Amino acid sequence: MIKVGVIGATGYTGAELIKLVYNHPEAELSVLTSKTYDGHPISDVFPIFNNIVDIKCQNLDVDIISEQTNVVFLCLPHKISMKYVPQFHKNGVKVIDLSADYRFNSVESYESAYQEHTSKKLFKSSVYGLSEIYKSEIKNAEIIGNPGCYPTSLLLPMIPLVKEKIIDTNLIISDSKSGVSGAGRSPSLASHFCETNESFKPYKVGNHRHTPEMEEKLTENAGEEIKITFVPHLLPLTRGMLTTIYTNIIGKTTRDNIEDLFHNYYGKKYFIRILQKEHFPDILSAKNTNFCDIGFHLDKNSGRLIIVSAIDNLLKGAAGQAIQNMNIMFNLVEQTGLDKL
Amino acid sequence: MIKVGVIGATGYTGAELIKLVYNHPEAELSVLTSKTYDGHPISDVFPIFNNIVDIKCQNLDVDIISEQTNVVFLCLPHKISMKYVPQFHKNGVKVIDLSADYRFNSVESYESAYQEHTSKKLFKSSVYGLSEIYKSEIKNAEIIGNPGCYPTSLLLPMIPLVKEKIIDTNLIISDSKSGVSGAGRSPSLASHFCETNESFKPYKVGNHRHTPEMEEKLTENAGEEIKITFVPHLLPLTRGMLTTIYTNIIGKTTRDNIEDLFHNYYGKKYFIRILQKEHFPDILSAKNTNFCDIGFHLDKNSGRLIIVSAIDNLLKGAAGQAIQNMNIMFNLVEQTGLDKL
Amino acid sequence: MIKVGVIGATGYTGAELIKLVYNHPEAELSVLTSKTYDGHPISDVFPIFNNIVDIKCQNLDVDIISEQTNVVFLCLPHKISMKYVPQFHKNGVKVIDLSADYRFNSVESYESAYQEHTSKKLFKSSVYGLSEIYKSEIKNAEIIGNPGCYPTSLLLPMIPLVKEKIIDTNLIISDSKSGVSGAGRSPSLASHFCETNESFKPYKVGNHRHTPEMEEKLTENAGEEIKITFVPHLLPLTRGMLTTIYTNIIGKTTRDNIEDLFHNYYGKKYFIRILQKEHFPDILSAKNTNFCDIGFHLDKNSGRLIIVSAIDNLLKGAAGQAIQNMNIMFNLVEQTGLDKL
Amino acid sequence: MIKVGVIGATGYTGAELIKLVYNHPEAELSVLTSKTYDGHPISDVFPIFNNIVDIKCQNLDVDIISEQTNVVFLCLPHKISMKYVPQFHKNGVKVIDLSADYRFNSVESYESAYQEHTSKKLFKSSVYGLSEIYKSEIKNAEIIGNPGCYPTSLLLPMIPLVKEKIIDTNLIISDSKSGVSGAGRSPSLASHFCETNESFKPYKVGNHRHTPEMEEKLTENAGEEIKITFVPHLLPLTRGMLTTIYTNIIGKTTRDNIEDLFHNYYGKKYFIRILQKEHFPDILSAKNTNFCDIGFHLDKNSGRLIIVSAIDNLLKGAAGQAIQNMNIMFNLVEQTGLDKL
Repeated sequence: MIKVGVIGATGYTGAELIKLVYNHPEAELSVLTSKTYDGHPISDVFPIFNNIVDIKCQNLDVDIISEQTNVVFLCLPHKISMKYVPQFHKNGVKVIDLSADYRFNSVESYESAYQEHTSKKLFKSSVYGLSEIYKSEIKNAEIIGNPGCYPTSLLLPMIPLVKEKIIDTNLIISDSKSGVSGAGRSPSLASHFCETNESFKPYKVGNHRHTPEMEEKLTENAGEEIKITFVPHLLPLTRGMLTTIYTNIIGKTTRDNIEDLFHNYYGKKYFIRILQKEHFPDILSAKNTNFCDIGFHLDKNSGRLIIVSAIDNLLKGAAGQAIQNMNIMFNLVEQTGLDKL
Repeated sequence: MIKVGVIGATGYTGAELIKLVYNHPEAELSVLTSKTYDGHPISDVFPIFNNIVDIKCQNLDVDIISEQTNVVFLCLPHKISMKYVPQFHKNGVKVIDLSADYRFNSVESYESAYQEHTSKKLFKSSVYGLSEIYKSEIKNAEIIGNPGCYPTSLLLPMIPLVKEKIIDTNLIISDSKSGVSGAGRSPSLASHFCETNESFKPYKVGNHRHTPEMEEKLTENAGEEIKITFVPHLLPLTRGMLTTIYTNIIGKTTRDNIEDLFHNYYGKKYFIRILQKEHFPDILSAKNTNFCDIGFHLDKNSGRLIIVSAIDNLLKGAAGQAIQNMNIMFNLVEQTGLDKL
Repeated sequence: MIKVGVIGATGYTGAELIKLVYNHPEAELSVLTSKTYDGHPISDVFPIFNNIVDIKCQNLDVDIISEQTNVVFLCLPHKISMKYVPQFHKNGVKVIDLSADYRFNSVESYESAYQEHTSKKLFKSSVYGLSEIYKSEIKNAEIIGNPGCYPTSLLLPMIPLVKEKIIDTNLIISDSKSGVSGAGRSPSLASHFCETNESFKPYKVGNHRHTPEMEEKLTENAGEEIKITFVPHLLPLTRGMLTTIYTNIIGKTTRDNIEDLFHNYYGKKYFIRILQKEHFPDILSAKNTNFCDIGFHLDKNSGRLIIVSAIDNLLKGAAGQAIQNMNIMFNLVEQTGLDKL
Repeated sequence: MIKVGVIGATGYTGAELIKLVYNHPEAELSVLTSKTYDGHPISDVFPIFNNIVDIKCQNLDVDIISEQTNVVFLCLPHKISMKYVPQFHKNGVKVIDLSADYRFNSVESYESAYQEHTSKKLFKSSVYGLSEIYKSEIKNAEIIGNPGCYPTSLLLPMIPLVKEKIIDTNLIISDSKSGVSGAGRSPSLASHFCETNESFKPYKVGNHRHTPEMEEKLTENAGEEIKITFVPHLLPLTRGMLTTIYTNIIGKTTRDNIEDLFHNYYGKKYFIRILQKEHFPDILSAKNTNFCDIGFHLDKNSGRLIIVSAIDNLLKGAAGQAIQNMNIMFNLVEQTGLDKL
């Protein structure tokens, strides 16, 4: 059994990780940490765990936790993660970091979106945990930078297209819509029920900090510099994310070509579902699963290609993909513990 | 024109008051106060007011505001209100206080639910602003204690029944359900979208502080001491309140008797709608109005009487009733400025 | 492996049964039926099953299906079920019927709420599938009448209390609130998004047809006739049910007595969670589980006992309890396939 | 007083028209029609009108209604409208048609999206009721083709830009999101609460029938043929629409230039609000108003221009703009009866 620690267990990603490890046949929860709830059972925070998960939260003491775990999931804010990752790594514990601190190859990109990175030594040795794309690197990784939710929803459909050079990389527009859980569990006016319910709005138009993460990975896979236009919006629902992407094909690519391309890339990937012609993803069908659903429409006359992807932002966009990465790192079948409905 | 000040304008009740005064043909907004937004136009807080209401928030200086207003609506927390009410009163400004500080006749009742009342001098001279019941007192009042939302939804249907002594006053059970706006605009875990959306729960079971307010008014109208059982619940919607009341009739009262009784009491009251047999209120039909809708069912065999009332918690349960009280105090037709849809 | 048929698979209960059987280690989906979708894969109806459950819907031919299954779950309308149950039974297939047709002991009770029962022969040989209460009968049953959602939410907390005769059986008031999925998947004005969203209302006040079901089971367990007051309400959420029950204790029962009583009854029952003092259920913590959460408050002075229960109406209130019954019938551990989060 | 008929009064647009006429100081409701509810008071359909609007629905008899009204609003399905419009017109009644039947200049465009137009005689004499753009034509019109909701949200921000030729008309992408009320009040699986709530999805990707309406009006205003990419999505909320538009500027246009351009066009238009830099519309601030809010972001380096507009789909997108057109036709101030909050 893989002994698992969830560091920062009282947010929404933490709660999902607890559920997934509870469901997992080859892993067990060993440690949950929380500063605020130190000493309290996790069911005090999330009553759904009553009678089921009775672990008490403890304070974050790296050396003690390193004794108790084989892998830790860090659900800590950016900048805080980088303080603990090197310590766990030094103690031989595998690390899956859900912050942005280990997602980047380029320090400049990271720092353009976040802040000074104060722990650059391990920066390069981490692997970007987009499971379907970087599986072979993940297998041997000791530190995973688990992808952001928006990047996951954009990169999975777009990487095959930019790799095969069938789209105009000067025109990639990502109109993304996310549920409120993506904003975390700390109370704020933005996540107040009455401010979000029956509303809908864009935010951080043109400057969301997931943009450099997406651009770095697209650039790397395309072999040419790619800039995108990205507008995130806030949906009045708890969980789920849908991204509508607009681009142009180049050359004489047909719809069938694109469908073949996707099937070649993802045909054997359990968690990618390529939808049939004239079918498009919806959040209801992706929610509570680790799937990324992809549908697309090609307008023959104009060459405009519209791609729609849907994920559960807390699963494929966070905790689910993190467990998928753990499975890969520990040589388990990728969907172990993730294939229940 | 009545010059109006809204003291504490940046909460949900404040926003509704601004709208209602904006719509009002005989009143005009003169002053909005906010500590946090001092100097900012109210449209910075609520963008719906862009291009329409361009008043800037100011700090709460009683003497300055007293010069600028004929009436002030206080949307301040309990205990804070009682600091300012006497000052406005002294300056000759009519006061409609939306906190609990001036709702009670009995200091003990107030203090059992809230805390020490530190301004008892004016405690007795205020009038409880349940408009349909206390209209004649409101007419001449200088300080109104505007009723709580739960009390409004219970008292309007129950006062006629206890006055006429047709129900068993030992059995009054109020199962109430409120939208999230009732909890105010300050961010908290309880009002976090993801904690409320797709959920429903009771809170403060058996000890909500609106209970003494309801019991005092029922007791006063019944002429005998009344205790009730009250359980509030939180609905996953922004605004609206529905209360289901269970009691027993005494004697041989029929459904028609009760319907007559309600019509006698409320037939000429614009804002009370007594529904026909087998019709019951719903929040959708009361929302965004100042109505209190009342429906009921009498089980002949058991004598069990089920009464359902619905209001908009921000209107008839707060700002709407406050404007109705202002209309009464200034000798206007009760529904002035409140009859738009 | 238990071979399972879901008869009427395209409603919300059908979808949940498919998920639960898919998750179940000892059962497998053999047959799905649908008149409308005959020949179509179930993923055409519910895209969440894409790539996962690829079974095609077939027409309802009892003899063919009887060859293919060990147990069938009937998700058919009342009155239709009673046509097929005897046929499956004759063919030796175990039947779990989710309609009301086999829930009653008394034909009169059934007919008072529904309509003429045209298949009375097997009426008496069915077992009421309230798993925690009737486990020993369920073990040997060949036909289960799976309980209604409202009855489940009321009976689980109330049966221990009426059995032990510690409450006044003349005063049982059940104020219940259900999500919209309880109304089924057929489009109607009542389930139209815009009629339900941001609204809340009671319906069938005093005459909902679950009332006789509840009264029959309470009466049977109390050993005296019991009548209740029941008001269902419609919540603006997809799934979940919360019931607030009002009664009086008789004698000198304390809160601790009641807590002990519940623990004696349910201490070893996996799916009943008795909450601690001053904790109450909420839908969020019961949703997507098969638990029934129970909390209560006793007002010492008045003797008023307030009990709150929460379930997922589609799980413990329908498909989950049906699988629990299957587990009991096939001698499996009760929570098999139901204990994932 | 303008005597108003609402033809097809029992849908969501009908309900809004009733409210707006009820609120209107210069208009009064004379006729409501409904086939299904013939003879019933409108409050049987919408209980919010209880005690307020007591008009009974009548059957659609053009000659009788023509005697009773000065203007009729037709809320009928496409194709049905064109049967009645000529008859009302012949009787001298002004017509505001909310279907698509009189929105187009080109019969071919209309027929490409809808079906054969069987009443072409008056096709050309109608005026497209986009109030801010076609005010002078509306003034003298006898038949108004009231714009679709999606077209309103796109055309108001885009017409000034294409007229001034500052954007690349080969790249206009409209990613639109609408509340469920846009789908009408007839029950369907698509508008079932459980299918929409907590979900989000695109529909009619690349072939929504509002596309030709938008393209015709853009083409006309640009003086060159314009094709757009349009993807509508369904939001889990009752009312409101937000459109995010992606285009490129041509030449050296700055943000200030664009802001000036908008202010020149719309500075005196009551119902257009141009938001300040770094402010973007949200549905909450436009809902229940007749405003169209417009915000935008220009990325200097790439020239990508992102424009966001928000309207209430039932008001500025339907009934509100219809009343605005009535005001223009009857020489009233444009915002008469539309300026309450």
